Amino acid sequence: MVFHRVCIIGVGLLGGSIGLALHRKRLAKHVVGVGRTTSKLETAIRRGAIDEATDDILVGAKDADLVIACVPIQSIVDSLEQASKVALPDAMLTDVGSTKQTIIQAAKGRLSDKQFLGSHPIAGGHHSGVEHATGTLLDSALVVMTPSQETCPDLVARMSGFWESMGSKITLLDALSHDRALAISSHLPHMVASALAISTPDELIPFVGKGWMDSTRIASSNPQLWRQILEENHGPALQALKKFATICDTWIEALESGDFDQVEQLLKTGKAIREAVASRHSVG
Amino acid sequence: MVFHRVCIIGVGLLGGSIGLALHRKRLAKHVVGVGRTTSKLETAIRRGAIDEATDDILVGAKDADLVIACVPIQSIVDSLEQASKVALPDAMLTDVGSTKQTIIQAAKGRLSDKQFLGSHPIAGGHHSGVEHATGTLLDSALVVMTPSQETCPDLVARMSGFWESMGSKITLLDALSHDRALAISSHLPHMVASALAISTPDELIPFVGKGWMDSTRIASSNPQLWRQILEENHGPALQALKKFATICDTWIEALESGDFDQVEQLLKTGKAIREAVASRHSVG
Repeated sequence: MVFHRVCIIGVGLLGGSIGLALHRKRLAKHVVGVGRTTSKLETAIRRGAIDEATDDILVGAKDADLVIACVPIQSIVDSLEQASKVALPDAMLTDVGSTKQTIIQAAKGRLSDKQFLGSHPIAGGHHSGVEHATGTLLDSALVVMTPSQETCPDLVARMSGFWESMGSKITLLDALSHDRALAISSHLPHMVASALAISTPDELIPFVGKGWMDSTRIASSNPQLWRQILEENHGPALQALKKFATICDTWIEALESGDFDQVEQLLKTGKAIREAVASRHSVG
Repeated sequence: MVFHRVCIIGVGLLGGSIGLALHRKRLAKHVVGVGRTTSKLETAIRRGAIDEATDDILVGAKDADLVIACVPIQSIVDSLEQASKVALPDAMLTDVGSTKQTIIQAAKGRLSDKQFLGSHPIAGGHHSGVEHATGTLLDSALVVMTPSQETCPDLVARMSGFWESMGSKITLLDALSHDRALAISSHLPHMVASALAISTPDELIPFVGKGWMDSTRIASSNPQLWRQILEENHGPALQALKKFATICDTWIEALESGDFDQVEQLLKTGKAIREAVASRHSVG
């Protein structure tokens, strides 16, 4: 599978990494980046993520056979709708948004079920921007694709082929299941990291160690971006946080009643889950 | 300051790292390790952390001019009391326990205020064992020393000199202030990491990303060790967790009422604190 013209709308960490991977794996003859900030597009060209840059979707997506929207969630459908007007008739359109229900909903009637299929590569970092992009970010990453009942099966097969050729693994989920899963696996850790940082008064800053640093790392993420994610997914995010709060209550009760067997049991359960995940993901 | 005979009771990650640093910085002519597991002591000798090993404190601490207890908190005062019977009269005795009130309390009348002064090097990792020890673990680490009203000022000066010659920075705190500070900066992140791991059902394990991995890293810590720490410091740990729970409640209210300005404000506050800490500690 080699694309003639790939259009990446939004060339940040993920968009830039996709561009680098397309080049590294020789999957695209030409990659166009669409963005509003000239300096960022220049960096993307200099780093080899894109071959050409424009601020106009109608120019960038012209005759494209693959369009990937890597913009904030609330702009995804608008961007892809514009792109669909000028892209090839059999072009594939996807996005990398980390919530899916509102996107799928907004896409109804505006994007063709033969062209559009939502994707979510579970990859990234707390650093954003094309300067942190790498051609290996998607290697072995899980990409969740969220076809609806109406999505054309052939499109699902072709989009799977694309992500697999990028080195990623594929899972199919309906949008609601995706959003509920990510609320726990991704959005909850962000809220918790933020709450943990907020719990630490200034005068205790000298006393934090490596554990605090690890546990709060994602509290440095972009607040505007995460506000949007939580706004889009606020139902599942709220459920996840409430569930987490009941586990904190179990902890509080154990400490309050001096039940240290229970404390040890909680610690053992947490360790077992952490280690099950680490062994599956082969990282520490 | 060069010691003639240093006795390290308990040669794990911290004890081993202290031994390696003593050798690397040529601060000790002879380092004896005391432990119960022959294979671990052999590893410590092979790695150059200690020169000699024994399972008998009365042998290891004989004529020592510095004794450092790196054993579980509940064994610290017993170990040092035994060591004090055979160490030199002007020997310094310290420990590296991560809670201090119960140790200082237990030491009263059993350890001399001219010999014993509690220390807590804020250094370590979620990997334990002498095989993970490094001679640089204490470089630039903060060591909190917790003298009581009765502690001999000369001992405070000498012990400061020791930790400083190890490359560490010194802060003096009373034991209660230390325990309250560490409840927030260290014990709270451990409880939160554990609760976060427990919030993740098995079927969502494929969907976790780097954020979840970072935020739960310390959930892999030793449950027995952390049970002990939380048991020793359960009052301050409970207060810290209750404070954290009120911040989670603020989050829940913001999501429940759809107040995303408040969500963004919380995210911004968390990011500001995380970045203030990261810039102070010069790490990401």
